[in-house]
Amino acid sequence: MDLSISLPDWAIQEQNKLPEFLPRVEDQMREVIRFSQWNIDHQTGGPFAAGIFERHSGKRIMLGVNRVVPLGISSAHAEIVTLSMAQRLLGSWNLGDTSMPEMQLVVNWRPCAMCYGAVIWSGVRSLVIAGSDDACESITGFDEGPIHPQWKEELIRRGISVQDNVLYEQAIEVFKRFRDAGYLVYNGRSKE
Amino acid sequence: MDLSISLPDWAIQEQNKLPEFLPRVEDQMREVIRFSQWNIDHQTGGPFAAGIFERHSGKRIMLGVNRVVPLGISSAHAEIVTLSMAQRLLGSWNLGDTSMPEMQLVVNWRPCAMCYGAVIWSGVRSLVIAGSDDACESITGFDEGPIHPQWKEELIRRGISVQDNVLYEQAIEVFKRFRDAGYLVYNGRSKE
Repeated sequence: MDLSISLPDWAIQEQNKLPEFLPRVEDQMREVIRFSQWNIDHQTGGPFAAGIFERHSGKRIMLGVNRVVPLGISSAHAEIVTLSMAQRLLGSWNLGDTSMPEMQLVVNWRPCAMCYGAVIWSGVRSLVIAGSDDACESITGFDEGPIHPQWKEELIRRGISVQDNVLYEQAIEVFKRFRDAGYLVYNGRSKE
Repeated sequence: MDLSISLPDWAIQEQNKLPEFLPRVEDQMREVIRFSQWNIDHQTGGPFAAGIFERHSGKRIMLGVNRVVPLGISSAHAEIVTLSMAQRLLGSWNLGDTSMPEMQLVVNWRPCAMCYGAVIWSGVRSLVIAGSDDACESITGFDEGPIHPQWKEELIRRGISVQDNVLYEQAIEVFKRFRDAGYLVYNGRSKE
């Protein structure tokens, strides 16, 4: 019984075209948002993407995308796919291993109730998000789930810094395109 | 870039030996606890296992185990591995799809902060756990993370029933054996 978690071919090709270093968080987020757009254009998953970068140098480690519908796996959110691939690439389940540079996770929206926990277990030291208000849910219809009411404070308490509202408007543009295209919104049954 | 999520060979062999139906939750939990024990005996992951069964018939769909250290993936908790494999087997990211019988997830302890969300997205209608107090954390040293303070109520609100304390003592026995054997406890860096 094997389960293969894969990125679309375009995502491999596009990340290989990027510079090795993207030192500014805005440049990191711009690429993540591009990936979220491409993921819906190619119909290879939902409008969510994530990137792992070395926190201080901006070295690009991995960009990944949501794969729930194509892979048929409800946990294949952009964060879990990308964190898992970065961990495999770097050879450790702990991206906070002290033998490594500190790692940063960049996502085109706030984590859902599940990915909030996945961020903590991953070992990243920094989370950068494009937004965290209800705009994504209200535009796309995606359910973020019953996340911990103090999720930002809980991340910070565990040594994970949170930077919010990086390229907010650009992220929202993709959600509007997703809505206007009428693509499938996959929520757990309980929100139907 | 492919990521292969696999069960150990013994887990495939052992589940194929089980009856097709295990109608009683205690019998389902007994097998899940056995898998948690075997997972540490074979050194194929942490002391956690999960099973998916049809809720009303008890038909056995999938048993799986924690694979964090062997696979090098922090999200490879027993719940996520088992839910993902069941979804692949049944051909849907939604185990709550109305074309299927209702599904039940049986785990040898309460969900962590991440798996709480994964349970919601999976579509299961029922969660059966061996315990939810601090015994697992205090015996094994595993960190369950900052889960939502009303996690049980939130699951119930979303149509997922929760049955707790099924074979509590038997689950605890495995955690004690894990502790006494001195195996690795993998927590996110922030709890070190």
